[in-house]
Amino acid sequence: MQPIFAERMNNMKSSRIRELLKLTEQPDIISFAGGLPAPEHFPVQAITEISINILKSSGAQALQYATTEGYLPLREFITKLIERSGIKAVPDDILITSGSQQGLSLSGELFLNPGDVVICEKPTYLGALNAFNAYQPKYAEINMDEEGMIIEEVEKALAENPKAKFIYTVPDFQNPTGRTISLKRRKKLVKLAAQYHVPIIEDNPYGALRFMGENQPAIKHFDEEGWVIYLGTLSKIFCPGLRIGWICAAPEILREYNILKQGADLHSNTLGQMEAAEFMLNYDIEAHIAKIKETYLKRRQLMLDTMKAEFPASCKFTKPEGGLFTWVELPEGTDATEVLALALKEKVAFVPGEDFFANEPSRNYMRLNYSNASEENIITGVKRLAKVLKSL
Amino acid sequence: MQPIFAERMNNMKSSRIRELLKLTEQPDIISFAGGLPAPEHFPVQAITEISINILKSSGAQALQYATTEGYLPLREFITKLIERSGIKAVPDDILITSGSQQGLSLSGELFLNPGDVVICEKPTYLGALNAFNAYQPKYAEINMDEEGMIIEEVEKALAENPKAKFIYTVPDFQNPTGRTISLKRRKKLVKLAAQYHVPIIEDNPYGALRFMGENQPAIKHFDEEGWVIYLGTLSKIFCPGLRIGWICAAPEILREYNILKQGADLHSNTLGQMEAAEFMLNYDIEAHIAKIKETYLKRRQLMLDTMKAEFPASCKFTKPEGGLFTWVELPEGTDATEVLALALKEKVAFVPGEDFFANEPSRNYMRLNYSNASEENIITGVKRLAKVLKSL
Repeated sequence: MQPIFAERMNNMKSSRIRELLKLTEQPDIISFAGGLPAPEHFPVQAITEISINILKSSGAQALQYATTEGYLPLREFITKLIERSGIKAVPDDILITSGSQQGLSLSGELFLNPGDVVICEKPTYLGALNAFNAYQPKYAEINMDEEGMIIEEVEKALAENPKAKFIYTVPDFQNPTGRTISLKRRKKLVKLAAQYHVPIIEDNPYGALRFMGENQPAIKHFDEEGWVIYLGTLSKIFCPGLRIGWICAAPEILREYNILKQGADLHSNTLGQMEAAEFMLNYDIEAHIAKIKETYLKRRQLMLDTMKAEFPASCKFTKPEGGLFTWVELPEGTDATEVLALALKEKVAFVPGEDFFANEPSRNYMRLNYSNASEENIITGVKRLAKVLKSL
Repeated sequence: MQPIFAERMNNMKSSRIRELLKLTEQPDIISFAGGLPAPEHFPVQAITEISINILKSSGAQALQYATTEGYLPLREFITKLIERSGIKAVPDDILITSGSQQGLSLSGELFLNPGDVVICEKPTYLGALNAFNAYQPKYAEINMDEEGMIIEEVEKALAENPKAKFIYTVPDFQNPTGRTISLKRRKKLVKLAAQYHVPIIEDNPYGALRFMGENQPAIKHFDEEGWVIYLGTLSKIFCPGLRIGWICAAPEILREYNILKQGADLHSNTLGQMEAAEFMLNYDIEAHIAKIKETYLKRRQLMLDTMKAEFPASCKFTKPEGGLFTWVELPEGTDATEVLALALKEKVAFVPGEDFFANEPSRNYMRLNYSNASEENIITGVKRLAKVLKSL
């Protein structure tokens, strides 16, 4: 029995992170692999109270089918949340998605014919590649420096690729590198989008988690014509298990996303949307984010300090001003996948960098997550990794 | 500002049902339009208790990222649930989806290249058409009688369409007609699938809601080689707002669905899955289904009786042995969309049949839902509809 799958399946492979998540369920492994928030900060007590209240006052609504665009009070809150990044929006500009992963998937579906071109960072978020690959694009990768994508390369890619359908970027504390696009380049990106009539997908899960340095306005802040599509999520500042993300876009674009979401899953979990909205409106999300940031900053610092002390001097790493990840460059010729095999024997896990490259992968990178490990485990895990790296 | 969308968007339109759902939010409209369960039977108190317990005992897990395949105790329960329809499966044969709508969407994604052929009932479920249309198929429609799809037509379609990629069917109390495929034809369908190497997508949201007549084994019950992909959901027997559906398929097929779900939304709402599992394992789902069936049977009977008494004799309708819908045939030449416009003035709503046809629509059909209206509203609503029909 072997049915004939669609051609797109030739492009698709299982995400190594998803596979690793399974491995790291073994309790004795210290994992820097996933992008998981610290569960000890989940507001479990608040969500318990909220659930009781919602089910008591609006149980039938909370468990019933709902409209595709999502729960209105949640969309209202989201307009306030993104206003802090300089985005002006009304609730009708927001479509609730099942995590921002769904926003990525629907973006591929909305824009990509086979052979169309996605302009993206090098490296870029592998979950986005997984989402886009189903639509069989080609990728034009843009090198980055400490200010994000090199703008001249973006312009060159736009000029050379008439089939470029969108520019995909994680502007703040990028996954995997932890880098942030500078203000100047944000403005320039919007200009290029308008000039070449190519939308920007601004995927911003981490922007609210800045530990140091100056807040940057969203790329969408500079968007006067509607070329920027902004994807957000509550997964990193609240609870990923509720699967709440959103798309903020111009009406003529958001309408098309809505149609695609109808076909994809009708609507997102109703009770989960109401729980999130209730928390955002009646609890202190600012205090909650401040608490998370305090924890992550400590863990980041400890990871950077321990790497500095323990890793061979030939290993470099980024020093993110926020977010969840640091990106380690190993000496040329080192294969991080081989390092992982050795690391797993030492009971420590990470994600090899190669899956974050849209085209030809560089093999000498590791992505390390610091948000989901205790301080003790960060020290022990980094030391274990250092032991492996020194042994090479 | 007008970005260039993918070609597939030419095929996509907003579902009229989703649009109607909005209209029917007006409290003075009696709606037979949606396929909504009766919210008064949602086990709100039980879910409250369950939520408290889960958040107390496993709060961090319930709010965290989880594996794509879904929560193991839920998948274990589902194997027991489908065993009643004669399907033998282990939890690894199950992938949790965000409602069975996502199962439909992923099925289109897995199998369909543009121009491939879907063999489906005439009429068929419009949500499936919405899901498949994104992948630009053609449709071979199969006429139905009281035993479901006419098998000779299925065989002819398979023989004539080398690009046929799957047979899509709602075998029990079909949406929209309420019809059920006979035992003999189920066996024959599986034989044809194996003979032509074309999978069957068996979409069964309503099978557990049989009011009368004999239970039929699932089509998948007769499947020895793995050609049948079974889609199920808790939306009609429990709570649609939790968005819990599943795909049961052979390992070499399910693995591919899993990869697509990773890209689509990573995984379904964790807390919702745990809530559903807890209910299924520790509360009396059988008693719950029995209660729903009792209500729906009463409403069905009342709708059929009132239609018989009030509708012009020229209107025919199906007498479903289960499920949520009856399918009304108006006299040839009547356009149900025009009827709807008049009906809305009388404050009663339904779904015109034309959207349920994959190719050329017949316009003289209405789909009426009886699960979501009170007995009083069924009488009043049908009388209002009768008034409109008599006025034509």
